[in-house]
Parts: sequence; structure tokens; C-alpha cells
Amino acid sequence: MVVTRELSLSTRGNGDIRDITAEVTRLVRESGLRSGIVTVFCPGSTGALTTIEYEDGVIADLQQVLDEIVPPDRPYRHHLRWGDDNGHAHIRAALMGPSITIPFVDGRLTLGTWQQVVFCDFDTRPRNRRLVVQILGEP
Amino acid sequence: MVVTRELSLSTRGNGDIRDITAEVTRLVRESGLRSGIVTVFCPGSTGALTTIEYEDGVIADLQQVLDEIVPPDRPYRHHLRWGDDNGHAHIRAALMGPSITIPFVDGRLTLGTWQQVVFCDFDTRPRNRRLVVQILGEP
Amino acid sequence: MVVTRELSLSTRGNGDIRDITAEVTRLVRESGLRSGIVTVFCPGSTGALTTIEYEDGVIADLQQVLDEIVPPDRPYRHHLRWGDDNGHAHIRAALMGPSITIPFVDGRLTLGTWQQVVFCDFDTRPRNRRLVVQILGEP
Repeated sequence: MVVTRELSLSTRGNGDIRDITAEVTRLVRESGLRSGIVTVFCPGSTGALTTIEYEDGVIADLQQVLDEIVPPDRPYRHHLRWGDDNGHAHIRAALMGPSITIPFVDGRLTLGTWQQVVFCDFDTRPRNRRLVVQILGEP
Repeated sequence: MVVTRELSLSTRGNGDIRDITAEVTRLVRESGLRSGIVTVFCPGSTGALTTIEYEDGVIADLQQVLDEIVPPDRPYRHHLRWGDDNGHAHIRAALMGPSITIPFVDGRLTLGTWQQVVFCDFDTRPRNRRLVVQILGEP
Repeated sequence: MVVTRELSLSTRGNGDIRDITAEVTRLVRESGLRSGIVTVFCPGSTGALTTIEYEDGVIADLQQVLDEIVPPDRPYRHHLRWGDDNGHAHIRAALMGPSITIPFVDGRLTLGTWQQVVFCDFDTRPRNRRLVVQILGEP
């Protein structure tokens, strides 16, 4: 069985990292499926999904590492194409990936205690985002 | 229901990034399944799957960032083992990951407008590649 | 159909990379399912899953690249929060991702000949880990 839902959120962009664990947990519970996988997917090429301990310090650490390996203030070739300023956002999203797949059992995500599902918005402006949350499994 | 297909392509290697959106879209449509997930997987340890806006500028930007964080011209220990020259290819593939999972609804991938599915061939020579495209869902 | 199993392993931490291909292969075979996907997921925010050619040289090369882009000996903000010393472990895990999804056909993983499934334990101490192995498919 397949249940497809959406999750909407407003971000500040610029590397905003948002905890979406509660919403994903709720959608899995409401699906009525007991075991299977949930895939959260970002339709768009400047956002990424992963898990992390959602704690201010490590979130800032991740943002700093990304600033170092994919700097925001470089003359990316992508900017010449469109007059955009978000070349780094595209590259970060491509490296981290646009989706995450998490097993659930007895209607509950198999996350660790200190592990949250997060959406990273690397675009250079605030965005209203719509994520696809698709649940496959058995009742 | 599960439908397994293959996708063949010839690459130039050396970081060749290829847009496979049309082929994946066609295989999903031909599967007859209406909603579910498609997983594209590279059997091999020097290729990766992700999504990106398939535009020359940002493709070159991604290749440059990869050249910086995983340089091609370093004496990797892997080279001592086999006399190979593709240590960087293995590391890039391991970091980015060999698969991608994308939900589809009404027979259509849930990609954004400017988001394409791409295969990255990091090996150091042209390759004939076979990717596994597996579709799980319901009719 | 959904089959959920666990895989236990003891690691040395500190970037220990472990080949779990044989165990995942066995769990898929024992599931009785013939085609579908297997998702291996780490419940915890300091471990990652990927594939690589499991060969001492390239394993050491990957560890060196990770030491360069996410150095272990930096004063991460995460350390101030908890008195921990594993900020780099959290960031590496978030970048590489906590799960991997691999198609199987006729009860066999579609891995390449020189491609193994690996768990990377980035935490700074030996750990007893429990990974979720979930198999979705048809008999």
C-alpha cells in the first residue's frame, strides 16, 4: 500500500535547517500502515534531507563546514547563466541529496533518541517549500 | 508490486554527469504503476546518483568543487593496491552514494521543474554503464 | 510484503568502516522475498551507510579525505553544549546520510563485483550498534 502526503513549511533560506520529525511522525501514524518505509523528497534542486541531532551547536557546525567546502561567495558559473546568486545552494543540495528513506515499525520511525529528520534550505531567499512524504508498507 | 528494469548508457567517465530523467520517467510510465517509489542504483563503486538543475554552468561548478575536496591527482593508497588511478572516483562515489529514491504520483515523478535525475561517472575512462531502475508501488 | 530485521555489530568507532554485505545478503535471502528493495538504516546521528570497494587502501583514503573536510580536532560548538568531543562525527554522518537503499532481484542484491555495503562509525569511542534492515518486495 502507498500513501502520499505533503508537508508545507516556510524557511528563511540561506542554509536554514528545520526539524520536520514531528510532522513526518504524524503522517506515518495517520497513514494507518504499521511497517514499511517513509521517503521524504524535496521537489527542487536547492534543498536536501538528512538526519542530525537537532541542537543549535551542531547545526551551526554543519553550516560552517558547508560554508568552507562549498563557499557562498564565489563566482559560480551558474550565476552567469541566470544572473542567480545561488550556485552554492545547487551544489550543496546535489552533494547531500534530495531525499531520505527511513523504516518504520509498529507505526513508529526507527530514529535514534538524539536523531531528528531535517530539511536544509540552501537557497538564498526565504522559500515556501512543499515536501513529498510517501509511505509504503503494510497495515 | 515490483517492476525491475535496466538503463544502459555510455559515458566519457572523468566526472561525466548525465541527465537520465527522460529514461527514468519512461520506465515509470511503462511500469503501469500509478504511485510509489523508483530507486535508481549504480552497480559499481565509481558512480553516483543525485538530482541537480541540468545546466552547463552548475554542472561545471559541481565538478570544480569535487576536484577541490577530492582531488584527482593525489597519490591515493588505492593506487598502490591495484596500479589504478581512480582512487578519487571511489571516494566521490562513496560520499555521494550509489542510489536515489524518488516518489511518483499518477505515474509521474515528483521532481521540481528545474530538477533532473543525473548519473555521475567518476571513473577515469569511458564506461558502458548499466543502472538498475526498480519501481515499487500500486497500480 | 515487509520484513524487518536487525543487524548488530561492535565497532571501534573513530571512523571505523565495516563491511556488512554478507549479513545484509543473508537477511534478504532469508526473507523469502524475490525482488524489491532493502533499506539499511542507522538509528543514531554519528553513523552513515554507503557502498565502496572494501579494500584497505581506499578505506584509508576515504578516512583521510573526511579528516580534511571535517577535521576531528576543531573546537566545534557542539562540544560546548554537551562537553562532547564528537562534533565532527555528527557532521560527517549528516553529510553522508544514515541510510542506503539497494534493489534485489531473484533474492540477490544488485551490487557490482567490487562493491560492498559498509557502515561508517564516526563516533569517538567503540560502540555496539544496532542497524535496521528492512526488506520490501514480493515473493
